[in-house]
Amino acid sequence: MKAIQVKEPGNLQVVEMEAPEIIHPSEVKIRMKVMGICGSDMHILHGENPFASYPRVIGHEVAGEIVEIGEEVTALKVGDKVVIEPMTSCGECYACQQGRPNVCEKVEVYGVHREGGGRETMVMPESLVHKVDESLDWKEIALIEPFTIGAQSIYRGQVQEGDHVFIIGAGPIGLCCLKMAKQAGAKVAISDINEKRLAFAERWGADDLINPQQENVEEQVSRWTSGMGANVVIDAVGLPQTVEQAIAVTSVAARVVLLGFDQKFSEIAQVGITKKELTICGSRLQTHRFGPVVEMFNSQQLHVEDLVSHQYDLNEAKEAFQLMEEAHPEVRKVIIKL
Amino acid sequence: MKAIQVKEPGNLQVVEMEAPEIIHPSEVKIRMKVMGICGSDMHILHGENPFASYPRVIGHEVAGEIVEIGEEVTALKVGDKVVIEPMTSCGECYACQQGRPNVCEKVEVYGVHREGGGRETMVMPESLVHKVDESLDWKEIALIEPFTIGAQSIYRGQVQEGDHVFIIGAGPIGLCCLKMAKQAGAKVAISDINEKRLAFAERWGADDLINPQQENVEEQVSRWTSGMGANVVIDAVGLPQTVEQAIAVTSVAARVVLLGFDQKFSEIAQVGITKKELTICGSRLQTHRFGPVVEMFNSQQLHVEDLVSHQYDLNEAKEAFQLMEEAHPEVRKVIIKL
Repeated sequence: MKAIQVKEPGNLQVVEMEAPEIIHPSEVKIRMKVMGICGSDMHILHGENPFASYPRVIGHEVAGEIVEIGEEVTALKVGDKVVIEPMTSCGECYACQQGRPNVCEKVEVYGVHREGGGRETMVMPESLVHKVDESLDWKEIALIEPFTIGAQSIYRGQVQEGDHVFIIGAGPIGLCCLKMAKQAGAKVAISDINEKRLAFAERWGADDLINPQQENVEEQVSRWTSGMGANVVIDAVGLPQTVEQAIAVTSVAARVVLLGFDQKFSEIAQVGITKKELTICGSRLQTHRFGPVVEMFNSQQLHVEDLVSHQYDLNEAKEAFQLMEEAHPEVRKVIIKL
Repeated sequence: MKAIQVKEPGNLQVVEMEAPEIIHPSEVKIRMKVMGICGSDMHILHGENPFASYPRVIGHEVAGEIVEIGEEVTALKVGDKVVIEPMTSCGECYACQQGRPNVCEKVEVYGVHREGGGRETMVMPESLVHKVDESLDWKEIALIEPFTIGAQSIYRGQVQEGDHVFIIGAGPIGLCCLKMAKQAGAKVAISDINEKRLAFAERWGADDLINPQQENVEEQVSRWTSGMGANVVIDAVGLPQTVEQAIAVTSVAARVVLLGFDQKFSEIAQVGITKKELTICGSRLQTHRFGPVVEMFNSQQLHVEDLVSHQYDLNEAKEAFQLMEEAHPEVRKVIIKL
């Protein structure tokens, strides 16, 4: 079978390797159909992901069709369209006991710590495979995983109906957070330095748009919320200064959700946290979000297919990554048909 | 009546002023009996509390006996021993709507924003007055308010049975957090640079003691938790570096509770928050904690009277504050009999 492999940092290839077979009776074999390219794939390509080892078959936003099932598999059958939950956990550590396997001490992500789904055939345990509705097309199904990341941020930030939510950054993850916050009944403002991205966010329901290169963000959030500040701020950019900004624009009793992995320091004064009794939450991967997100996709509530701006074939994987590299403002989500 | 007044920063006096009378039928008149001195009283005396105006009658850890009730008062009667919940809120802002009146946009604290309870007579709305058991003595009752602050930290940090909780600082607030964490069934380690305070914390049930001047805190917490890290860290010191330390010693999925109002910057890298999906919470004043804490005091479960190390009469208020100023290690809680 063919697979998209980062041989070492900077070197991505479509390689030939042996197709896997079912070993354990609880596993299923999947003919992979689609892979979305994520910012973290780019980090692996650049050698900037501390968790990745090489060579590595990448791809964690992946889906396909079941072609074989193990003897103990009960909930899935041949022909099912499925999306992969690309994460394993130990079940024993403090995080797992707390129902938070996404930060398991031994968490492993497919496509990062272990071989991902950017290939023609994949074998997975039934428990990490979610059936989706027959009527969805692969372009949509490719978006389920990034939407679980958005859903996790909404969950961590305890977004409630009527909340004023401010999202920093209108890239794919910011947009997924936007859509999920609107689903939760919140009002949403979003910022980006790129006007095309802001225009797209408006089409997706953003109630207010802020361009930090043209406006003072703190003043604009204050104006938008009539002086209250944002009840939830989601930082989908993750620079040291956006973390500082996120805390500055909050209301009392607000939540700040951080998604970034930047190792550089932000300068944060504790009085800004205690005075308003803020809650600052990391949001990593997702916990139990596939179920509800698959349901939203199945019921056709979201209308998100237009997030996919470019599609490539497996043989064109290098071109797809090259396009991501160039970071054109009209590039949103790039997917590869496997 | 006599009252303890900070006339302006640095100038504390026992002054004579007119005793208040019941105006609204839902009010009660209280013969005040006891006032605990808190670190924030010292900040007001030093002109370091941004919320205080002068002259100000201080005292928010206060209790007394009802001597008169308004016509609409139903839950309280003359002769009741009561403790004051020293905080008002607007009921309308985002925080109030969220059930978090402690960070109401218009929150006012008795003894800070408005006249406190360090005086012989006080009139309060019934809703901010909590009856305590007849059998409690005033020394104990004086401790209820600081224990609500500890209870708030435990609540904000979602301390659960079996959790490893690390408390930075064994001053009165750190000790209240310790006792409350033990009540919640947690294991508790506590740090302080003062051996006498650590010895007292051990008497109060601390499972592990750490002196940061003699040991590496991160190593000790790691050893104590067999490498896991602390599930909850409560910073009851509030220096920029203790905030950084609090984040560093956490387990995955941990909570960090901040109580300090320091305006200086801590240097915090977001990766330390997202990687473990930490929750960093401010904890300010308290929300709905008087009920459960009064119940704990009433049922005599806590055994905390020995937190009071020194008692003074109202006329000796200056000496009491002078003792606090000197910060001897054997000074824990100082109370003034009113």
